[in-house]
Amino acid sequence: MFNERGYDGTSMEDLARALGVTKSAIYHHVSGKTELLRQSLDLALDALFAVTREEGATSGPAADRLDHVLRGSVRVLVEELPHVTLLLRVRGNSEVEKHALERRREFDHHIAGLVREGIVDGDIRSDIDPAVASRLLFGMVNSIVEWYKPDRGLTAEEVADALSTITFRGMHS
Amino acid sequence: MFNERGYDGTSMEDLARALGVTKSAIYHHVSGKTELLRQSLDLALDALFAVTREEGATSGPAADRLDHVLRGSVRVLVEELPHVTLLLRVRGNSEVEKHALERRREFDHHIAGLVREGIVDGDIRSDIDPAVASRLLFGMVNSIVEWYKPDRGLTAEEVADALSTITFRGMHS
Repeated sequence: MFNERGYDGTSMEDLARALGVTKSAIYHHVSGKTELLRQSLDLALDALFAVTREEGATSGPAADRLDHVLRGSVRVLVEELPHVTLLLRVRGNSEVEKHALERRREFDHHIAGLVREGIVDGDIRSDIDPAVASRLLFGMVNSIVEWYKPDRGLTAEEVADALSTITFRGMHS
Repeated sequence: MFNERGYDGTSMEDLARALGVTKSAIYHHVSGKTELLRQSLDLALDALFAVTREEGATSGPAADRLDHVLRGSVRVLVEELPHVTLLLRVRGNSEVEKHALERRREFDHHIAGLVREGIVDGDIRSDIDPAVASRLLFGMVNSIVEWYKPDRGLTAEEVADALSTITFRGMHS
């Protein structure tokens, strides 16, 4: 509902009605709307950071670790589509949103670091700027929330493969 | 102002105040807010379609034409940043927005067609799906509105070069 109507445009009343419960039933579990937003953003961010701690993201050459994190991020986007969609729309209008933006920046820096390491290793071409490259890479990954429809039979794996092939090996045959 | 406060959140009153003119002075030029939205979306779309009619986009192998359109789109995004930003946020809530979405889809189909042609020519690898590839490519291009800051010294040309290098030749050195 936050994604459909906007966070500001959604009341606890709306949420209760959609869930078919009373407002006080929701307040039994969470302190309010802010808490729901925080939980949703944390869920998305925790899932993305979990990818950076997987074995494929912590051992081996930086280029392979980058590939692993990109693929894992695609999987997280597809699996947690509503939460990541909400995360990507956050503009920093409150403390909760500011904290989420800070964690997103931390994630971006991690990616830029992997690109930089890959260049030093000689595995990633040195004629691209790590900061620009990591923004473009995540632009591609994040765009998935705009067009991916779970019911059209395209799996997270297929999207991850296409993204990895295009960005690492290039479209030229 | 439409980008900052949202189209619905901006009144003709707000626009007049920001411009330092009276509301009737604005109404002298445009019929209303809808007309301003239409003009802004058309400006962005006309600039994108203009790229597809340039010589580099109409002659030569499909892969080169695709490269030309991608680079030209980056240029349009950077040059018309507020208008393209508005275009990319359109959700189809009115006739004007629906028409803009239709033109965006037409543009997307053009890109997917170039990828498909490039595969037939043997210039683009055949193991990527043209529809998925074109969505990912434009995800990357469109992400520019989220992070590009005109005052940081990065030119449209440099962004276009990075994007073209990553997507056509791949990051692997």
